[in-house]
Amino acid sequence: MILDAINKTNDIKEVGEGDLDELAQEIRDFLIQKISVNGGHLGSNLGAVELTMALHLAADLPQDKIVWDVGHQSYTHKILTGRKDDFDTLRKFGGMSGFPKRRESDCDVFDTGHSSTSISAGLGLAKARDLAGEDYGVYAVIGDGALTGGMAYEALNNAAALETNYVIILNDNNMSIAENVGGVSSYLQDIRTADAYRNFKMGLEDALNKLPNGVALVDKLKKYKSSFKQLVVPGMFFEDMGITYLGPVDGHDIKAMVKVFKEARRYPKCVIVHVLTHKGKGYAPAERHPARFHGAEPFDIETGLPAVNRTKANYTDVFSTVMLKLGERNPKICAITAAMPDGTGLKRFSRKYPERFFDVGIAEEHAVTFAAGLAAGGFIPIVAIYSSFLQRAYDQIIHDVCIQDLPVIFAIDRAGIVGADGETHQGIFDLSYLSSIPNMTIMAPKNKWELSDMLKFAVKLGKPVAIRYPRGLAYDGLEEYRKPILFSQSEMIYEESEIALVAVGSMVKTAEQVRDVLKDKYGKHVTLVNARFVKPIDKEMIAYLAKQHTLIVTLEENVENGGFGEHVREYVSDNDIDVKVLVCSLPDDYVEHGNVAILAHEVGIDCDSIVEKIINR
Amino acid sequence: MILDAINKTNDIKEVGEGDLDELAQEIRDFLIQKISVNGGHLGSNLGAVELTMALHLAADLPQDKIVWDVGHQSYTHKILTGRKDDFDTLRKFGGMSGFPKRRESDCDVFDTGHSSTSISAGLGLAKARDLAGEDYGVYAVIGDGALTGGMAYEALNNAAALETNYVIILNDNNMSIAENVGGVSSYLQDIRTADAYRNFKMGLEDALNKLPNGVALVDKLKKYKSSFKQLVVPGMFFEDMGITYLGPVDGHDIKAMVKVFKEARRYPKCVIVHVLTHKGKGYAPAERHPARFHGAEPFDIETGLPAVNRTKANYTDVFSTVMLKLGERNPKICAITAAMPDGTGLKRFSRKYPERFFDVGIAEEHAVTFAAGLAAGGFIPIVAIYSSFLQRAYDQIIHDVCIQDLPVIFAIDRAGIVGADGETHQGIFDLSYLSSIPNMTIMAPKNKWELSDMLKFAVKLGKPVAIRYPRGLAYDGLEEYRKPILFSQSEMIYEESEIALVAVGSMVKTAEQVRDVLKDKYGKHVTLVNARFVKPIDKEMIAYLAKQHTLIVTLEENVENGGFGEHVREYVSDNDIDVKVLVCSLPDDYVEHGNVAILAHEVGIDCDSIVEKIINR
Repeated sequence: MILDAINKTNDIKEVGEGDLDELAQEIRDFLIQKISVNGGHLGSNLGAVELTMALHLAADLPQDKIVWDVGHQSYTHKILTGRKDDFDTLRKFGGMSGFPKRRESDCDVFDTGHSSTSISAGLGLAKARDLAGEDYGVYAVIGDGALTGGMAYEALNNAAALETNYVIILNDNNMSIAENVGGVSSYLQDIRTADAYRNFKMGLEDALNKLPNGVALVDKLKKYKSSFKQLVVPGMFFEDMGITYLGPVDGHDIKAMVKVFKEARRYPKCVIVHVLTHKGKGYAPAERHPARFHGAEPFDIETGLPAVNRTKANYTDVFSTVMLKLGERNPKICAITAAMPDGTGLKRFSRKYPERFFDVGIAEEHAVTFAAGLAAGGFIPIVAIYSSFLQRAYDQIIHDVCIQDLPVIFAIDRAGIVGADGETHQGIFDLSYLSSIPNMTIMAPKNKWELSDMLKFAVKLGKPVAIRYPRGLAYDGLEEYRKPILFSQSEMIYEESEIALVAVGSMVKTAEQVRDVLKDKYGKHVTLVNARFVKPIDKEMIAYLAKQHTLIVTLEENVENGGFGEHVREYVSDNDIDVKVLVCSLPDDYVEHGNVAILAHEVGIDCDSIVEKIINR
Repeated sequence: MILDAINKTNDIKEVGEGDLDELAQEIRDFLIQKISVNGGHLGSNLGAVELTMALHLAADLPQDKIVWDVGHQSYTHKILTGRKDDFDTLRKFGGMSGFPKRRESDCDVFDTGHSSTSISAGLGLAKARDLAGEDYGVYAVIGDGALTGGMAYEALNNAAALETNYVIILNDNNMSIAENVGGVSSYLQDIRTADAYRNFKMGLEDALNKLPNGVALVDKLKKYKSSFKQLVVPGMFFEDMGITYLGPVDGHDIKAMVKVFKEARRYPKCVIVHVLTHKGKGYAPAERHPARFHGAEPFDIETGLPAVNRTKANYTDVFSTVMLKLGERNPKICAITAAMPDGTGLKRFSRKYPERFFDVGIAEEHAVTFAAGLAAGGFIPIVAIYSSFLQRAYDQIIHDVCIQDLPVIFAIDRAGIVGADGETHQGIFDLSYLSSIPNMTIMAPKNKWELSDMLKFAVKLGKPVAIRYPRGLAYDGLEEYRKPILFSQSEMIYEESEIALVAVGSMVKTAEQVRDVLKDKYGKHVTLVNARFVKPIDKEMIAYLAKQHTLIVTLEENVENGGFGEHVREYVSDNDIDVKVLVCSLPDDYVEHGNVAILAHEVGIDCDSIVEKIINR
């Protein structure tokens, strides 16, 4: 195995040129094998094997800096920088992250996770290099999907003025997680298929040269430099901004890429290298089902089927089904995703109601303001975005939705601890940032039926509403508790005295366990209330509970600052209500990657930790 | 006066064609006169007079929908829609807003204030129109400055796929508030100056046609349609995305614009009309000093000089001066603005240290991640952004700065109530959204010297820091209180007993007044503490105060949810500290436009309101 010789940074430079394709194949086999066991991002990594190898061959690591946009395609980079043996702990608690991490390697220069940040970060590194009087290379590797994110364009616009070298590698696989959308994508598609056209243009110059006065004409053309470029360069979109375009180059041809990456380093300005890759390359199931193999659960290599067959619905499935019903009942309902029709569960809605479904690309800011426009036009848009990605649209939620009090519904998936993706993907701030916004109503369902009921309630409310629900299986307990949803009203589940647990969404299930332990082991009398509304909270219920309990315990999967517990404490304090409030929430810290149950224990919101907090109080 | 006949929507359509230029002049005179008295946005409005008139002539209002990007250029639109007489109350409490407001007119279809939202909102309105089976026009009017904002590009990318009509009017004055920057700006400049080049291209087609085989060549070119367009169309940047480009057209030629606006409505797709305007047009001082007359204080029409000469420094001036000193002392200090070198006070730094100054365009997201890149490269970036605009970068602050714990300093101007700009510009959420972020330190200075001290402290801290300070005059009281800044430590100003006022930043001054009234009128013993740190709070001080006071009153110019008061309450509650906490903050609501003192009273954070709350407690 050639791969056996790859044990530290730059070992790849010792591999013979004739062995590189074989090494690429071995890396692919290694990735497929490891990810089939542990889960992880497969398609994007298989697509970027040769690109990463070429970059390591062309660059001078660790002096040169590579910023990986999103970062889920950095597995080959991890292999080539001495982390091959850590793949058995990939995405496990305490193990190797699935994203670049500065704490892991001196070759990881900037942490990523969210889309479209690399060009900005790389430009900052390039400017720092210039100011320090140094001369290393800075590379940003960005996918064509991430290029639909506005901040990538903000950064390109800014990078255009650079008068030193900075190389942007556009890893173009014609995909976001799902199929890519939008004008720039069509434009790149035009370039991809432009071989004949390019040959023609070259022919044109020759033809003109041969004509009487033709040489003069070509000279005249060359005077109007940018105009002439339009005749011979496919990347005018970038050239128009002032960025030098090189490509397209075959993203699975290592030799060709090394050549162009080295050439790109020679320009004293910002250069974009257009590399064409194939997502899932070399593993047929991943090539056929790119969305499924984007972030894969453990799977059977032979068949490509999931190793564990899921028999129960997760919250995304429930949302997906309810959206079909809502779409049927109400022709005003629209659905919006930012490049995640599969992940959010909107695929079925998109098939049944294509005219009311909008995939806007990786563009959360636009998604929210576009929804506000639809609402101002009389429709009821439901925007489905993961909790950590909705952070991108905080200003738009305030400025375009809530100031105008428009009926936009936010379906916030992956709220709370998400597990293996780690720090950048935990949905642990939404209750805080949404609570700060006037006119916003925030709900969280205790189980799958309540998600359905809350969505229906939100459609009727006619105001901005956020409903947040976690990643993973939808809780199917407490089926018998299905009191109609009323504005700002919580739901009494078990009424006793002494200690009242008031739990938000996913924490209702945990609170049931906590209650059982408190009763069985400690002989306590314990009430359980399902909060339902995080904003506005059910003040009457809190006042009522205060009368017959000495302690109110709030439970939420969100940081403490600005969360549900603070709202309860605020009400109790402002009204001099005589009851102690214990807030069980996440600490003021980031939560790393790992199994959700382990993480819940680590941050103190599993059953045992909460019981201990209550008893020790 | 022709203007006398303009009293409701569409009255302009009764004005004779020959009188339109005269009407434009009367509108200009009217605007200059009104704004010279009340203050307001002058330059952008003078530039858009004819554009707005042409749009009103070409469109069918109120059926057609116009979304004004940012909205500060909508004054002529207000005049033409029956609000001429409201200009005496412009930007005053209870009076007419300086921005489009749906509550003011059926011709204001979408509220704006922040940059780059119009294309998204308009696309939503256009889709709503299509879904409803209607056929009115939808226009987004956006400046070239706003086009540097990423969400404008996200929206263009999405709009490119539209198969019905949607007209984007690019109001290109080659300016943001200050001079425009970046690649797209250079590109537009190329178009503006491309007359000779355009003529040449037309000539080229003729020349080719006359050559032997030339007709065949032109035919062949036309087959490659997009390539052929590159020969004859200046707006390929937009055409590349799939958006039809019309222009450029003279933005002060009403007749020409009416013609092209009507033509634009005929395409069954997204069309961009490139209109060239001149900011400040028709008023020499505004043409000469565009930044000063962007948002103008009352001024003398004759001289263009401010009506009231400011003799005292505001916080922006103080920041400006300190930045010069910091830049001199420490070569690692960099300064970043998102298109506001004047407004943030960084102009002087930019002149003295041009290589360490970065104006990234209207691009707050990129600004923050670019700063993170600089910090990862070993520099100390200070990002100066207004409080309400920094909302745009919430995710980048979490994801790119604070997860990596990078030493980026946020200088947050216009924090708290800003006054005349109203809802969209109030800086009343920053303490909340920043407090939710782990690794963030938040400070607020009580007076001008403390802003200086805090900046110096932040540079030394080596971690993410936010310093927020208000619009307007820097407080120059309490000069003698200048204890060195120590991490998470507050400052005792007056130590007594009974009631402890713990005030954040600008509220220290108010707290002095509150204390005087409580002592003089009510005979109370009152302690005053300057909080200094909003995160982390000074727990020792709170515990200490709790021992000798029965009531702790927190004061802050921020909404209650997630703000400083909640942190204090959290600490007191978690530690069973026996003291009452009264939180004086802003209500869970938006704050409209008007005089700051009036607004402070309205929302209950002026001296009288706070005294009343304390006494009635």
